[in-house]
Amino acid sequence: MTAKEICELLAEKQYKKIKESFADVNVVDLAELLEELPERQMIMAFRLIGKEEAAETFSCMEPREQQILVEALTERELRAVLDDMFLDDTADLLEEMPANVVERILSNTDAETRRQLNQILSYPDDSVGSIMTVEYVDLKPSMTVKASLEKIRRVGIDSETIYTCYVIQNKKLIGIVTAKSLLISDERKTVEEIMESNIITVNTHDDQETAAHLVRKYGLIALPVVDKEGCMVGIVTVDDAMEVMEDEATEDITLMAAVAPSEDSYFGTSVFRHARNRIPWLLVLMLSATFTGMIISKYEAAFSALPVLVSFIPMLMDTSGNCGSQSSALIIRGMAIDDIHLRDALKVIWKEVRVAAVVSSTLAVVNGIRIYIQYGQDLRLAFLIGLTLVCTVTLAELIGCSLPMLAKRCKLDPALMAAPLITTCVDAAAILIYFSIATAMFPQI
Amino acid sequence: MTAKEICELLAEKQYKKIKESFADVNVVDLAELLEELPERQMIMAFRLIGKEEAAETFSCMEPREQQILVEALTERELRAVLDDMFLDDTADLLEEMPANVVERILSNTDAETRRQLNQILSYPDDSVGSIMTVEYVDLKPSMTVKASLEKIRRVGIDSETIYTCYVIQNKKLIGIVTAKSLLISDERKTVEEIMESNIITVNTHDDQETAAHLVRKYGLIALPVVDKEGCMVGIVTVDDAMEVMEDEATEDITLMAAVAPSEDSYFGTSVFRHARNRIPWLLVLMLSATFTGMIISKYEAAFSALPVLVSFIPMLMDTSGNCGSQSSALIIRGMAIDDIHLRDALKVIWKEVRVAAVVSSTLAVVNGIRIYIQYGQDLRLAFLIGLTLVCTVTLAELIGCSLPMLAKRCKLDPALMAAPLITTCVDAAAILIYFSIATAMFPQI
Repeated sequence: MTAKEICELLAEKQYKKIKESFADVNVVDLAELLEELPERQMIMAFRLIGKEEAAETFSCMEPREQQILVEALTERELRAVLDDMFLDDTADLLEEMPANVVERILSNTDAETRRQLNQILSYPDDSVGSIMTVEYVDLKPSMTVKASLEKIRRVGIDSETIYTCYVIQNKKLIGIVTAKSLLISDERKTVEEIMESNIITVNTHDDQETAAHLVRKYGLIALPVVDKEGCMVGIVTVDDAMEVMEDEATEDITLMAAVAPSEDSYFGTSVFRHARNRIPWLLVLMLSATFTGMIISKYEAAFSALPVLVSFIPMLMDTSGNCGSQSSALIIRGMAIDDIHLRDALKVIWKEVRVAAVVSSTLAVVNGIRIYIQYGQDLRLAFLIGLTLVCTVTLAELIGCSLPMLAKRCKLDPALMAAPLITTCVDAAAILIYFSIATAMFPQI
Repeated sequence: MTAKEICELLAEKQYKKIKESFADVNVVDLAELLEELPERQMIMAFRLIGKEEAAETFSCMEPREQQILVEALTERELRAVLDDMFLDDTADLLEEMPANVVERILSNTDAETRRQLNQILSYPDDSVGSIMTVEYVDLKPSMTVKASLEKIRRVGIDSETIYTCYVIQNKKLIGIVTAKSLLISDERKTVEEIMESNIITVNTHDDQETAAHLVRKYGLIALPVVDKEGCMVGIVTVDDAMEVMEDEATEDITLMAAVAPSEDSYFGTSVFRHARNRIPWLLVLMLSATFTGMIISKYEAAFSALPVLVSFIPMLMDTSGNCGSQSSALIIRGMAIDDIHLRDALKVIWKEVRVAAVVSSTLAVVNGIRIYIQYGQDLRLAFLIGLTLVCTVTLAELIGCSLPMLAKRCKLDPALMAAPLITTCVDAAAILIYFSIATAMFPQI
């Protein structure tokens, strides 16, 4: 079923046929399909989705289309969709909508839901509280396995996951029971007997990345969220954790290329927004590159006397810049996936010093030989470039590995200290080293 | 419990105390704890882990420690661990071990397991087949819900997930049933009545990234894997999908910084291995930067006559390089998360042209003003640099967005076309544009 076919069927008023074919489409694909339709057709098609799938399909759609639908649906239709949506999806929706739409949505939810929504929305952006869901299965320690399974049967349909149940006593989380252990245990046992009391939890105010890490590290399907008092308030499910992981990697890659990260997709971001995300860093880097230019100006006499010196500038700048970004990228990613910790700082620096020794001497030798051959066996020139490479590459790797760790130490995002910034820092240093060695070696300049 | 405490307790032969405290530790943490111990103590401590947790802890450990353990355990101990391990973990283990250890492991598994292991190991690296697990719950369409739940109770303990069960007829996958729907459905219904027949599957030979994408996109807990004939052969679970997602993001970030990706951790990679991963690209980029140097040499007369020209080289090179890497990073990541497709190529280029217009004119104006003020109201110089910036930035953004798409078109990894390579290409172009405009504008040089 393509968007074009749907439009044709809608024009022919073949509603039943559309309804039937929708039943076979996964809600994620259905959402994508609807987004391709023109506005009026999208609204018509949405009304033809089965009651069970409508809310899920709606949750999968982009904010722009969600807003069109909210504004087009009748009070009764809207209420039906909102009733079937999970609270975390409704909270996401509210965050994206303009004030008048938010009002309309809230007026169609009951008081208890409104209270829970306000709770979720009150947590800071990027905190665990803002992505958690409050719909989970809670059990009492004294319940039997049989009673627990019956409870799951009763409330399961409204819970985002039933595969991990939470054992609560006086609002405190005291254990977890998986559906697997309920299914394979004797029906007469109590929850207390089969529960796992060594639980991994996360706090509402922790960074959402922390939650994603824990889900990934311990292979969880859902992670319980507790508040400051240790009371259970919600769960983070593995699908939300995957989304956080993907978004965080995207943010890092974007930042590492000196672009302010955007929450929207590439095409969902306007041209001016794109430009606004890119210009600030470019300006900063441009002005600092000017500094490198000023260093060069200082050595005008040197390259006027020996113009060949200028032709090595791009190679020296690029190579040291590349070495710096290589180490910074490895360190930034290593810290992001919890492979490198701040306490390892000295170990990292010692490793990079040794890597730099191997890398810089290889590059120096290869380049030295090339220059010796190309420039009429000028040993001094070959030696100058080789020595400069050893110094600049070593310095570049040290700067490349230290700056991201320093940023983390200062609670900044290490991804800021990637290629663009490192390159600019390293460039100035490389030029300075290059001309210092050159003027020392060639007294005539 | 810290590594030091364990060593002390081991020295005091307080085995019971260690055993008890191990019972409260999550297997992932236990594996990390054991890895911190000296070899002999690690082997002793491993023997104190409860039977149920031993295999899981072993699966979570690093290859180096796994090898030490395999070599130290008796045949009976090894068999016990292998029996409780999931097949995909055993396959991972075999891939990492030297030949003699592989032999020892295989001689301790039964014929059927060996056959399945060989099957998994025969799939290409990075294919879905190589990460799938063959332990899942299969149901027949005619089974009742009650019978299905009983089957789960019986075989569940040996399956990696029981939360999605697969309905098989003549070896073909015809539907899926979630544990949730089994639990909330009437016990007398048949599997056929409640199963979902619109299934998302993946092929054994597909890229593992495809599987991770599907799990992420559809929010799955497990994804069924079929062979060329459509017969069900295994599943990919969400925890493996998360691992693939993390590894692929790491690989992209590493490649984007011109480092050959390594499967090992930062500290797990030796200094020489690190150097070997970094040197090849550095050499290629260094030699191509030499090309930029040769272009500069051509204009020796120009900068001898007007030495101030040289001092703008770093700023022009850096700025255009940065613009190029900004667009390439956005496009590479956009393609990696399926946000940008090859069919959007023209749309991307048109968007980047407009972004380039805004970005380059802003940079040109800011820089023009600065130069006008700094260099004694030299309008011609300000205009030269401004015009060069407009040309080079536009070109850089076009190269930055096209090369990754071109790489994808040629079935190369788009991440290769990131900052380092783009910078080198753009540098040569920027220098050429700069001096061409300069010689045209300043006839005296």
